[in-house]
Amino acid sequence: MRATTIHGPGDIRVEQVPDAALRSATDALVRVTHACVCGSDLWAYRGQVPRLPGQRIGHEFAGVIEDVGAEVRTLRRGDRVLAPFVWADGTCANCQEGLPTSCPRKGFWGDPGADGGQGEAVTVPFADATLVALPPALDDDQMPAVLSLSDVMCTGHHGAVSAGVQAGSDVVVIGDGAVGLCAVLAARRLGAARIAVFAHHRSRARVARRFGADFVILAEAASVAEHARELTDGRGFPSVIEAVGTADAMAAAMAVAAPGGRIGFVGVPHGSQSGVNLRAMFDRNLTLAGGITPARTYIPQLLPDVLSGALDPAPIFDLTVGLVDVPDGYAAMDDRRALKTLIRM
Amino acid sequence: MRATTIHGPGDIRVEQVPDAALRSATDALVRVTHACVCGSDLWAYRGQVPRLPGQRIGHEFAGVIEDVGAEVRTLRRGDRVLAPFVWADGTCANCQEGLPTSCPRKGFWGDPGADGGQGEAVTVPFADATLVALPPALDDDQMPAVLSLSDVMCTGHHGAVSAGVQAGSDVVVIGDGAVGLCAVLAARRLGAARIAVFAHHRSRARVARRFGADFVILAEAASVAEHARELTDGRGFPSVIEAVGTADAMAAAMAVAAPGGRIGFVGVPHGSQSGVNLRAMFDRNLTLAGGITPARTYIPQLLPDVLSGALDPAPIFDLTVGLVDVPDGYAAMDDRRALKTLIRM
Repeated sequence: MRATTIHGPGDIRVEQVPDAALRSATDALVRVTHACVCGSDLWAYRGQVPRLPGQRIGHEFAGVIEDVGAEVRTLRRGDRVLAPFVWADGTCANCQEGLPTSCPRKGFWGDPGADGGQGEAVTVPFADATLVALPPALDDDQMPAVLSLSDVMCTGHHGAVSAGVQAGSDVVVIGDGAVGLCAVLAARRLGAARIAVFAHHRSRARVARRFGADFVILAEAASVAEHARELTDGRGFPSVIEAVGTADAMAAAMAVAAPGGRIGFVGVPHGSQSGVNLRAMFDRNLTLAGGITPARTYIPQLLPDVLSGALDPAPIFDLTVGLVDVPDGYAAMDDRRALKTLIRM
Repeated sequence: MRATTIHGPGDIRVEQVPDAALRSATDALVRVTHACVCGSDLWAYRGQVPRLPGQRIGHEFAGVIEDVGAEVRTLRRGDRVLAPFVWADGTCANCQEGLPTSCPRKGFWGDPGADGGQGEAVTVPFADATLVALPPALDDDQMPAVLSLSDVMCTGHHGAVSAGVQAGSDVVVIGDGAVGLCAVLAARRLGAARIAVFAHHRSRARVARRFGADFVILAEAASVAEHARELTDGRGFPSVIEAVGTADAMAAAMAVAAPGGRIGFVGVPHGSQSGVNLRAMFDRNLTLAGGITPARTYIPQLLPDVLSGALDPAPIFDLTVGLVDVPDGYAAMDDRRALKTLIRM
């Protein structure tokens, strides 16, 4: 079969790899119909996190079951399914508590020895626990929005939940990438009163407004706190979502939080540790929560709203490519010509 | 009047200072009957935080109202009162939300220009909002426990609340100082199922057990995580209270937290920033909450249990001195001959 591989910084290829196949009685074999490129894939693309030469890549996909192992109980050939970006056994204490990302038997698509999502097929461990069955009558137009639940929409939602967003909250989102934009959607869905976004790109600012942001501020890091004070009578925001992962973004999150505020951080840390200001957290009683989203737990909560159209993250996809053009999809995101690339098999 | 002053590292004096007096219509003049020395006073004593030569010191006290300004409504001469370690106006948005430590007009006893708690009298700003009236029939034996609510018991409670302790929680406390021991009491009061304490001193371990700790582990920092895994079937603790403020203590807190766990940090940061491990927080979805305790908010919640005897932090005081012997009280705490020094005027 063909799948996307990474051979070094900027070196994404689509090449022949061994066919995906059932290896365990709890596996499912999924033919991928839709996948996408994540902002976190760009860290590997840019050489900022290491990958083995030829390692698979891609961790967001949806598809159709081609075969299941003897112990798979809830899925069968022909079912449409969505995969969260982590597989997990579904039976350990962490899975039972809704945190499959801490399952001792978890793994990530594209881990060495595992299939990646940006390929023709994937062997899915613990299929009953890992995959979410989709309605058979799903319209193809709905798939981009559904696919966003594989990671990015659940990540934005986790940021909002971790920031304590609820009905009437004043919320600020640091970052206008796909995660930040999904955080806007999530905050709106949770009933936020006012949502502000600190953005860097005019095109993304438009999506933020479309997603429900009341204020979109194109600001340098140094002036973020001042803007936040102006918007909040000097107090800052009680709910802050850090959706980038850099030191500047975390420092901005600390600076704009109101006393007693909560920062939901979902940007994968790439330097953000140095933006943490523990003394400011102490003096102002800030809470820092978040982390890797337990997407498998959130998907069933969010899927009904996606299917009804009440929650529509599809506009984050502004480029669609076929499998052979995945390298172009990476380049477009790296150059910021695309916000997020959808891969249609 | 006489009051305690600090002139440099190790140089604590009791000397004549200008009499406390009403300066504003919302002030009260309080004659101090009981005060104490805080672990955070030792940072100044050891020269690790700067003080002006001759600056007042001490921020925990109780006493009797000697006089009130014209606009003080709820207090009068002769009332017994307890002071939290911060004064605040009681009217700003932060005060109204229960966070007087973020009041823009707040101040700390011993700030330059303000009286300290370790003296004969204190001018109390915003007296109605700042002070808590005590029952007139209070027995003198109850005063040490009541005085603990000025800071240390409320700080321990804030650690437990911030760590999400509730009925049935498994809790670990990092630190066996007075704050850590009060955190044990607070966790027990909130209904914790099992409480473990990482301690350094056998005498304090005994107090921890008396306060309700189920496990007291005298362990080096390097072995803390291993001990925690043994006590929790490998998972770690869902509620962790960091009651020291050093890098080792914060690193230990991160290491012993279960996936999805909450760390309540109430040790004043003195290096603990470098113990924060944001990547571990991200991967395991840890929450870091806490900070300076809003004692004024907690005192009315905890005082009834102290008055009934259900909550008795008094054993943290293991040395009592008069005003003239305050320097000895500091030295005893600095040498770890005393856990916490009570000052009886």
